[in-house]
Amino acid sequence: MADQIYSNYPPPLNPAQKEFLVTTIKDWATQNGLLVRPAPTFVPKETDPSGVLATNAPVTLFPSPFPKSCFDEAKYLQTVYNQLYAAITCNEEWIGKIMEDLIDVDDFISHLWKVHLSVKEEGYAQTLSLGLYRSDYMTHTPSASTAPSLKQVEFNTISSSFGGLSSLVTSLHTNLLNSPPGHSIAYPSHPLFNSNVPPENTAVETLSAGLAAAHNSYGPSKAKPALPTCILFVVQKNERNTFDQLALLKQLTKVHKIPVFRLLCSEILDHTSIPSSNPSRPLIYSPPHSPDTQFEVTTTYYRCFYAPSDYHSERDWEARTHVERSAAIKCPTVLNQLAGCKVVQQVLAETAGPDHLSSFLSGTDSAIVARIRETFAPQYDLSSTGRGRDLALNVETAMNHVLKPQREGGGNNIYKEAIPEFLRSIPESEWKRWILMELIKPPSEAKNVALRSDGEVLSGHVIGELGVYGTILWDQASGKISHNEQGGWLMRTKGRDVNEGGVATGFSSLDSILLY
Amino acid sequence: MADQIYSNYPPPLNPAQKEFLVTTIKDWATQNGLLVRPAPTFVPKETDPSGVLATNAPVTLFPSPFPKSCFDEAKYLQTVYNQLYAAITCNEEWIGKIMEDLIDVDDFISHLWKVHLSVKEEGYAQTLSLGLYRSDYMTHTPSASTAPSLKQVEFNTISSSFGGLSSLVTSLHTNLLNSPPGHSIAYPSHPLFNSNVPPENTAVETLSAGLAAAHNSYGPSKAKPALPTCILFVVQKNERNTFDQLALLKQLTKVHKIPVFRLLCSEILDHTSIPSSNPSRPLIYSPPHSPDTQFEVTTTYYRCFYAPSDYHSERDWEARTHVERSAAIKCPTVLNQLAGCKVVQQVLAETAGPDHLSSFLSGTDSAIVARIRETFAPQYDLSSTGRGRDLALNVETAMNHVLKPQREGGGNNIYKEAIPEFLRSIPESEWKRWILMELIKPPSEAKNVALRSDGEVLSGHVIGELGVYGTILWDQASGKISHNEQGGWLMRTKGRDVNEGGVATGFSSLDSILLY
Repeated sequence: MADQIYSNYPPPLNPAQKEFLVTTIKDWATQNGLLVRPAPTFVPKETDPSGVLATNAPVTLFPSPFPKSCFDEAKYLQTVYNQLYAAITCNEEWIGKIMEDLIDVDDFISHLWKVHLSVKEEGYAQTLSLGLYRSDYMTHTPSASTAPSLKQVEFNTISSSFGGLSSLVTSLHTNLLNSPPGHSIAYPSHPLFNSNVPPENTAVETLSAGLAAAHNSYGPSKAKPALPTCILFVVQKNERNTFDQLALLKQLTKVHKIPVFRLLCSEILDHTSIPSSNPSRPLIYSPPHSPDTQFEVTTTYYRCFYAPSDYHSERDWEARTHVERSAAIKCPTVLNQLAGCKVVQQVLAETAGPDHLSSFLSGTDSAIVARIRETFAPQYDLSSTGRGRDLALNVETAMNHVLKPQREGGGNNIYKEAIPEFLRSIPESEWKRWILMELIKPPSEAKNVALRSDGEVLSGHVIGELGVYGTILWDQASGKISHNEQGGWLMRTKGRDVNEGGVATGFSSLDSILLY
Repeated sequence: MADQIYSNYPPPLNPAQKEFLVTTIKDWATQNGLLVRPAPTFVPKETDPSGVLATNAPVTLFPSPFPKSCFDEAKYLQTVYNQLYAAITCNEEWIGKIMEDLIDVDDFISHLWKVHLSVKEEGYAQTLSLGLYRSDYMTHTPSASTAPSLKQVEFNTISSSFGGLSSLVTSLHTNLLNSPPGHSIAYPSHPLFNSNVPPENTAVETLSAGLAAAHNSYGPSKAKPALPTCILFVVQKNERNTFDQLALLKQLTKVHKIPVFRLLCSEILDHTSIPSSNPSRPLIYSPPHSPDTQFEVTTTYYRCFYAPSDYHSERDWEARTHVERSAAIKCPTVLNQLAGCKVVQQVLAETAGPDHLSSFLSGTDSAIVARIRETFAPQYDLSSTGRGRDLALNVETAMNHVLKPQREGGGNNIYKEAIPEFLRSIPESEWKRWILMELIKPPSEAKNVALRSDGEVLSGHVIGELGVYGTILWDQASGKISHNEQGGWLMRTKGRDVNEGGVATGFSSLDSILLY
């Protein structure tokens, strides 16, 4: 069924149609902030020393077909997923046990865990915790005759990005489908386009509302004398995805009327402080451009600190610890970040042993828990003898799997028949650094055309990944949830032969969807 | 009085304040479409062969002070100016007399006049005429003790640009003045900022409403069989100011629901046709990306064809003639474009001889006509002996003047003491190619800081030029006006030592105003 949908999509473009679409998309993206800063490989620093240039984010020319049943399911499950990851984060002991095994294989996780332990020792000054999540899926379509099902690729608990740009791609494709008004001719005609537009995408509204909920729940200033309050976006140096972040900032400023500042993670210690005399530990921000004015930070929103490469020295870990021990609501806390590790996903998916999933969702209808479990792709650890090792070492079964490093932000995946050979080439003691995951089989006939950030237009077979956004605010002490929402989505489409690579590097494109 | 306002403005910036403002403006401009395509001197074609890069339009960091009395006067007079230029355009005989004198000195005007004559011979197929105008002024402040007065620099009847970007600069400065919400600290404090924001800028709404009024007045399709209708933006190749145009296109599409297409002036003859069998001469547009669909053009909006450099060959003149003889409402017609020549401004300003201004505004209160006349800077032709020659040849009086070439789109101005010497260096027979204009004296203490499109930040003394937009739709046969509106404005601020140069080249910046 799915293959029929994909095999004659998208409609072919003649040169004039392609030129029109590319030009229109290029201009629309630029006019409407669907932009990234250009990569240094495209625009060398010496050409643009002040960093004023921008270019379109990589986007597909067409929205991609997506099964309505899977989209609805992903949306339906998001608030349950939010709740699941809040519950995991509340169970510090459980996380601790998992981390114990990883500490000697993963410096990064070890470092994060140490930050948590040191703040725990002093006592956390803030029990509220904010999650801005994105759950990423592919549609699993093992054969032409089976209905597609939803399989989770990963669950992001930190710096869940592209909400801002994704909303814009949805608008772009929606506009093209209705352009010009009353006489849609921007695209060649195709049955999928008849009275069809992408579903509403409220990513900006939803993510901003989550941040605003935390800000408003912070309560009155804890500083003496009281200070005005703000949200702090903590960001990377040389960030190219600035306009994705600014979409949220604009919404918070315009709609929620909340002061928001952006601060480089490398400058946290320069411009924020926690008065040692104040046991509430308010995080005070002094904007460098107005040092006489002070704000109290209600919420720190990290668009950094998610990968080992974000920590250049001990000072960066010190900065992370400094914020963690403050009264600011963290989005996310170190514990919540750790809950998003690959290994947690694998432990939840384990079919042997205790049913962690049901325990974490103890108050939830078992039918819904089962639907969550349905989204797990089978995955195994290789630390001890068992099913994982059997599947990985046999070429025939390995063909159906991918080997992923446990290490966060780490290297490349090993695919299919290369797995047994690879494992045999490394000492068995290192096997615990890897997770074996059954390959998700997306529709094999899916195709699209992408406009890269450097203006190149590529077309061919693609793999699409749907992300659904959710936000949750809970009390880490009581487990009480005060805000739990789902809203907005991201479609990312990669050339089929590309297995890795983020959108911003140009190997994959932002997309939207047409439901079928 | 004015000098007091300007002498301590803008407030000084320390390095952190400057960096914050520049970064914020750079990002805001990019996120919100306040952009231009970079000049080839900044980004060479080989770096960006597909033309995807964009950069901020050149903008001032601060809005500029502007006298409220002058702003109000400029707005008040705009609909009268609209009416004046419609009346001039209706008087083909009067324009013809003026053009007669210019035909041997100005190829361009001669060519335009020939287009008109050839269409006149066949008979115009459309009597409705649309003007999208911008009247440009400086504040004349001859001494510190006199109140500033409004003096017209020029009146644009074709391709009056920057309405789209100007609205955005107004939003930018307004946002900065109120940023963050509730605690304005983006700018250092200054008395002029207290509860003050730039006046409303409806340039996009006003200009689009003018185009929509023409579109709606066109009436039913004249084609057989009837076709859907559209507006055509006729644009230049290698246009860098695309996003200014797209702001109007977006408004027409989103708010007025009118199909709008952009067509290169060099491709008019490839993609439009006038069926020879149809005496109504509808202009039929076949979009190259959908050649089976045809639209009938109600309105052609020129963002080209204003300068000699827009006509590369006879084919371009043929294209202009082709549109002129069609039933499409032209914005503007050739006659209306000619009405905007410098020489018309000079003839209107002549104090000796017939009172052309009063004749054209015969139905208007003489007090208002006097207020229009007040905006004229004294200007003189040098074709015959008289006051102009006397003033130009005497170094003492020349000091107070500028010599401007009659030729449209022509070379540089000659200033002050250089005038007598220059005139004596050329044959007297050529003097008629020049107009002598009394120098307008803007506030001498005005200063600002500008962020150029290449990221350079410049500060120093500046000269500001206010443009006010107006739109008018009239019947060229009856003189009846069906739409006459004023709305929106443009502030352009140039470094004081720069006498020429458009905004897009980076020599001058888009600005907004704070009234005092």
